[in-house]
Amino acid sequence: MIVHRHFDEELDLLKQKLVFMASLAESMIYKAIKSLIEREDSLIQEVNKDEEKVNLLQIEIDELCLRLLALKQPMATDLRFITSAMKINSELERIADMAVNITQRAAVLIKQPQLKPYIDIPRMADLAQNMVKDSLDSFIKQDVDLARSVLIRDDKIDALKDQIFRELLTFMISDNSSIPRALELILVSRHLERIGDHATNIAEDVIYLVQGKDIRHHIEELGDRRK
Amino acid sequence: MIVHRHFDEELDLLKQKLVFMASLAESMIYKAIKSLIEREDSLIQEVNKDEEKVNLLQIEIDELCLRLLALKQPMATDLRFITSAMKINSELERIADMAVNITQRAAVLIKQPQLKPYIDIPRMADLAQNMVKDSLDSFIKQDVDLARSVLIRDDKIDALKDQIFRELLTFMISDNSSIPRALELILVSRHLERIGDHATNIAEDVIYLVQGKDIRHHIEELGDRRK
Repeated sequence: MIVHRHFDEELDLLKQKLVFMASLAESMIYKAIKSLIEREDSLIQEVNKDEEKVNLLQIEIDELCLRLLALKQPMATDLRFITSAMKINSELERIADMAVNITQRAAVLIKQPQLKPYIDIPRMADLAQNMVKDSLDSFIKQDVDLARSVLIRDDKIDALKDQIFRELLTFMISDNSSIPRALELILVSRHLERIGDHATNIAEDVIYLVQGKDIRHHIEELGDRRK
Repeated sequence: MIVHRHFDEELDLLKQKLVFMASLAESMIYKAIKSLIEREDSLIQEVNKDEEKVNLLQIEIDELCLRLLALKQPMATDLRFITSAMKINSELERIADMAVNITQRAAVLIKQPQLKPYIDIPRMADLAQNMVKDSLDSFIKQDVDLARSVLIRDDKIDALKDQIFRELLTFMISDNSSIPRALELILVSRHLERIGDHATNIAEDVIYLVQGKDIRHHIEELGDRRK
């Protein structure tokens, strides 16, 4: 009985840590894009400090998962939950990395005149942030519908990325001097796209975890499987 | 005794499957770049077929790892080995994804006149392929020195990526008509860079696994820690 309660407590701790890590990652995306839009260097520094916290959390969470796995015979469902948590942990760390990458582009861009008003990039960032939040919520609540909604939003983010690409290509072709800045902005949109991909990976894991079906490579069947 | 032998056999099977998956991923990188250089559409199709195999392997390996974890109390070292295998499995699948992404760029590029002779891109691809091979070998042999050599090569790949970027930027600025093709080539180099990143993730996992130290976020200390 004591062992069992101990296990549940550790499992709760694991959930709390993942939720905290996800909220940190979200706020890093927010700050990274804000640093670009408001041309605010101090936010770039903040994101870099946040990354250190995320890195420590990643190690803590991994250790906690290993400890939980080492406890005598976790049940099959717990086993899958813990191994999913380990994967999600990696995804969140990579999301934080992407936020750092965005600040690297922002650092270059805010030293130069703004190429164009930013409209689609903040929209993409909003989408990406919400996908991260909802993917993690879907894990904690084991909510398959919420997880599916993340997968659907990934198409929107990809469409925005393509739109940004086409628009910036026009800028580049009509004005050579815009090329370096346009390239930086294209990279920002790709970093945001990858955040969407990581959130999608989390959502796919959740669906697998709850349904016991692996949909990672069968997204195309999604429509059929929805209730 | 029988249970124990059974566990070891399953562990061997796991290693074999990972080695096979890595060799598939390597050959996909090779074919993807060859499709670009030799303007060979049939290779693009091959890479897409290979990806299906990789996706099935990923699911098989994950299931095998879960089965191994569910066996009564794997020892602490086996536990870490299995959870590392699960992470490496994800990395290999992403490497294969990057090869597919390269073929998407190749499909666009081979329909147009070649912008320039490809020199650095095949070099980057060679490096990336060897990094994948050696990272997996370092895992199977638990060879920390080999794993470290992968980390060092990641800097070379990043330097090549920057060089390619600068060169293509010059092309774009001097000739507008080169912009779309130059952008595609920049993306190819970024996909190769990410393959290097995934191999690096594997190598870091190996060092962690063997040394019990987490170096993922302390790469800068690498020089000091080398023997």
